[in-house]
Amino acid sequence: MSQQQTTLHVELGDRRYPIYVGASLLSASNLIAGAIKGRQVVVVTNETIAPLYLDTVLRQLPDTMLVTSVILPDGEQYKTWQTLGDLFDQVLAARHNRSTTFIALGGGVVGDITGFAAACYQRGVDFIQIPTTLLAQVDSSVGGKTAVNHPLGKNMIGAFYQPTAVVIDTSTLATLGEREYAAGLAEVVKYGLIYDPEFHRWICANRDLLAARDVDTLRHAIQRSCEIKAEVVAADERESGLRAILNLGHTFGHAIETHMGYGSWLHGEAVAAGMVMAVRLSAMRGSVDVDLVVELEQLLVDLGLPVWAPQDMTSATFIDLMALDKKVIDGQMRFVLLNALGSAVVVDDVTEAELTALIDG
Amino acid sequence: MSQQQTTLHVELGDRRYPIYVGASLLSASNLIAGAIKGRQVVVVTNETIAPLYLDTVLRQLPDTMLVTSVILPDGEQYKTWQTLGDLFDQVLAARHNRSTTFIALGGGVVGDITGFAAACYQRGVDFIQIPTTLLAQVDSSVGGKTAVNHPLGKNMIGAFYQPTAVVIDTSTLATLGEREYAAGLAEVVKYGLIYDPEFHRWICANRDLLAARDVDTLRHAIQRSCEIKAEVVAADERESGLRAILNLGHTFGHAIETHMGYGSWLHGEAVAAGMVMAVRLSAMRGSVDVDLVVELEQLLVDLGLPVWAPQDMTSATFIDLMALDKKVIDGQMRFVLLNALGSAVVVDDVTEAELTALIDG
Repeated sequence: MSQQQTTLHVELGDRRYPIYVGASLLSASNLIAGAIKGRQVVVVTNETIAPLYLDTVLRQLPDTMLVTSVILPDGEQYKTWQTLGDLFDQVLAARHNRSTTFIALGGGVVGDITGFAAACYQRGVDFIQIPTTLLAQVDSSVGGKTAVNHPLGKNMIGAFYQPTAVVIDTSTLATLGEREYAAGLAEVVKYGLIYDPEFHRWICANRDLLAARDVDTLRHAIQRSCEIKAEVVAADERESGLRAILNLGHTFGHAIETHMGYGSWLHGEAVAAGMVMAVRLSAMRGSVDVDLVVELEQLLVDLGLPVWAPQDMTSATFIDLMALDKKVIDGQMRFVLLNALGSAVVVDDVTEAELTALIDG
Repeated sequence: MSQQQTTLHVELGDRRYPIYVGASLLSASNLIAGAIKGRQVVVVTNETIAPLYLDTVLRQLPDTMLVTSVILPDGEQYKTWQTLGDLFDQVLAARHNRSTTFIALGGGVVGDITGFAAACYQRGVDFIQIPTTLLAQVDSSVGGKTAVNHPLGKNMIGAFYQPTAVVIDTSTLATLGEREYAAGLAEVVKYGLIYDPEFHRWICANRDLLAARDVDTLRHAIQRSCEIKAEVVAADERESGLRAILNLGHTFGHAIETHMGYGSWLHGEAVAAGMVMAVRLSAMRGSVDVDLVVELEQLLVDLGLPVWAPQDMTSATFIDLMALDKKVIDGQMRFVLLNALGSAVVVDDVTEAELTALIDG
């Protein structure tokens, strides 16, 4: 039973939506059924998650509903145009119309594909996010970024499309593998760095409890991360300004992921190494003290995360891969840097010489 | 040179956009270059249109721009998920980033695919509609409905996504085939029926000049059609209410298209036969006089359009095909009927008995 349930909201006018955070929300509440408007539901999940939670979710749905389950293969390498086409085939064969609701039950890959599918199915249907990984709970399930990958780049095809509700059941984290769990913590660390010095200090002080998945520590970490993300997204839904600060470490991180091939490094692992690079670059520019770089590296190591890019990646490798990044505008690469702990800024004047010094030096 | 150029606007707040209507706009104006914000352009067209107008458009673009032309095969049968995937492959290979602008140069198929591609490419880039068929000029290029087809239904995968500008060069209609031209007139007729009795009477009085493609008659027909569509779309962008009246004849028409296989009947031809069915159903209900049905049939015949569905389509055929239509909500089929000339209404209480009497009777 969920004794401690928190409800936040992403404030987007008539598309405002709630984020529910608590233990055992999947089984001990009517949150899911209550968030469905019509009488048709498509539950999208993957081969790993289905045996764990699919039945629990299906039991929440009234017998009178048309319910179709779509089980995707597990892995970032399946976050493709082809997978999305297969999904549409199944949903159309089951004759769902535009009053249907898509439910994403799984991690970031399931959430990104399902959200994009909901954005496109009959020009847009409702969808609900039920994230089951820490990364998805603190990052990808909130904010409406949806997409599939392309061989030439991550998240190249997608949409900004907001869910109607996000249901975060912290109990699902108990079954998460070590690497996946740590990868989620990378994004938690990010929120402190870019937005909230106090949260950063709290994370540093509670790193052991976080690594041990202490329930109360975790709930606070998720809640505060979602609050920060919700505030940033509400201020700038389509990333024309402020929202870009959520990409701290991501320009470098995406390059690492593309270089290594999807699924080799986890997204959060690449972001961890990328954040160290971004903060180090900020220190090289004199914006933050070099002590922060050292502190960040130690924190990430304690949380089980990588702090270095793969050794075979030179500055030339990075520059080539980053040129296709969505954050490039008219040939000018953009980076999120810190101008202080808890305060981030987007810059477009990073030179190749700086990247050489940072990466090859 | 365009002596007579008209500019309308679709009033959608910060997404307000202009519709330019006039002769020779493709070659005699800086409208196209002026509507591009960045320095990258993707021109999407098809094998039929490319030899006619692609060079003319490319000549309007500054040499300093990264310009990529994508030439699709011609035909509704290529308005597919697969074609869209191929398009993304080409655009990504040419390294367009999210500051690029997509230009749709062609008819409704090119416009629908290109608009949907723009909606999804890197989560949304600008796009400009340059419709070269009458159907696209009076209907599909205005209003932001974009999509691709699926074997199980038309326009099943898509988005509401508004262009940044629509450039209608009426001179392009000189090269249009007879059937395609007539198919466009079907939508012109629709606007009078659903919204403007005076426009309906003008169309009836000017049917010979319209059929003969008289330049001034045509410009007025296009301008008034776009005005009506712009007003309806501005009032209800995502079709939660009023906008549905634009679908007069389309529920029946889509069923005809699906039954015959895409590309056999033109969209406007199916809509023509569908409009007769819808107006006849309105007359059966006593909402309009049966004389209007007769008048409409004669008008459509004079414009070179079909007024009957294929003989092998029974009411059962229609009901089965319409069940998957997007306009079905929770199993209840919805139809646009007239409650008077110039005034349309959406109803969801049409019975199978009525459809049997209409179609099999």
